[in-house]
Amino acid sequence: MKLLGVLGGLGPLSSAYFYELVTRHTKVERDQDHIDMIISSRASTPDRTAFILGRSDEDPVPYMVEDAVRLEKYGADAIVIPCNTAHHFIGEVRRSVSVPVPSIITETCEYVRRAGFKKAAILATEGTVKSMSYQHEFERIGLEWAVPDDAGQSTLMDIIYGDVKRGVIPPREKLDRVAVPLREEGCDCAILACTELSLLKRELGDDPFYIDSLHVLAEYAIKLFGREYTP
Amino acid sequence: MKLLGVLGGLGPLSSAYFYELVTRHTKVERDQDHIDMIISSRASTPDRTAFILGRSDEDPVPYMVEDAVRLEKYGADAIVIPCNTAHHFIGEVRRSVSVPVPSIITETCEYVRRAGFKKAAILATEGTVKSMSYQHEFERIGLEWAVPDDAGQSTLMDIIYGDVKRGVIPPREKLDRVAVPLREEGCDCAILACTELSLLKRELGDDPFYIDSLHVLAEYAIKLFGREYTP
Repeated sequence: MKLLGVLGGLGPLSSAYFYELVTRHTKVERDQDHIDMIISSRASTPDRTAFILGRSDEDPVPYMVEDAVRLEKYGADAIVIPCNTAHHFIGEVRRSVSVPVPSIITETCEYVRRAGFKKAAILATEGTVKSMSYQHEFERIGLEWAVPDDAGQSTLMDIIYGDVKRGVIPPREKLDRVAVPLREEGCDCAILACTELSLLKRELGDDPFYIDSLHVLAEYAIKLFGREYTP
Repeated sequence: MKLLGVLGGLGPLSSAYFYELVTRHTKVERDQDHIDMIISSRASTPDRTAFILGRSDEDPVPYMVEDAVRLEKYGADAIVIPCNTAHHFIGEVRRSVSVPVPSIITETCEYVRRAGFKKAAILATEGTVKSMSYQHEFERIGLEWAVPDDAGQSTLMDIIYGDVKRGVIPPREKLDRVAVPLREEGCDCAILACTELSLLKRELGDDPFYIDSLHVLAEYAIKLFGREYTP
């Protein structure tokens, strides 16, 4: 494992933050200790949620498959996708290359299980929620889950599309407004299951209730490439 | 101009910050408005300063040339290098590809001239200082320059190699200790002419005395790809 491929740009600010997370959390003494990476930031890839929900017929899959093939040809030994919604199409990506394509969803659910949580709130795009990818994974490993009600989901979509993807970091209370009712419903953690929400966490500081899927993927990649993870 | 190539990883945290700067300062309404990029983060490239100063015989040039060729083959329409010291080798990189390879040094000096400054302090690695690349460029466009004395240069190298490249952000006073004497000598601006110093600026906040070469390169790339720059 020498070169980490990143199928990114979905969106680009999240991919930049993923690149930073991998770099900051790898224990190094000098530049040369870091993981070599090749990052495709294909921001022009059509919107994933819009396609999953049938609101657009612009299919992101040909873009993602083409990127994965080019990353493998470039020499990538594994390919990660720092975007939860895009994992709806991970089957197509995996079938197009012969290198491993670990899943942010599988690794995040596994992380939640190992940490001993029992019921996770899923904070994600409508595309991710509707694709049932987190729900199925939690059920497979025997954990409970909850998703926001319609009003909460609308607020989340406004945070993701109305704010973060346009470069605005909303006040923290906007996210809490969605998560607090789920906590009161018995959730002992909330997954930031959209990498735009990871950017919110970065700006708004740590709260152990929130588990950042992007951070989990970064830690996973660091270990996959034989490096030591440093918190 | 559709795909921006980034010859990065020199070091990786600076390249991640460059990626973030391009993304944050491009005026967009949605993901798809951003510039598509292909970023090679070849952290394993041998140290540039050590080679320039003859302290190591591990030549970074074959790595950089190989990366440039692969980025062009991937489809990059231009290649930028978010590392000042590596620009010592820009001639070799330019000769290896047929796409443009703009220089962070030329663009930064040009920025200083346009902004009306008269005498610039060059805060850089020993490799960049010894390679005379900034000095020659400033002389070519008729501006004065100054570099730190030996003690100041040692402090800078400690900030770059002892702190930032190992993931530590030193207190701001450490940089001011180098820059203030140069200001008193008549410099009206100081170039952060090493992308590790750009990271310091990011953490320590803005001061109009410091001009960040990485930010200048990001703004240049945004405009080169026909996007609107937003401060």
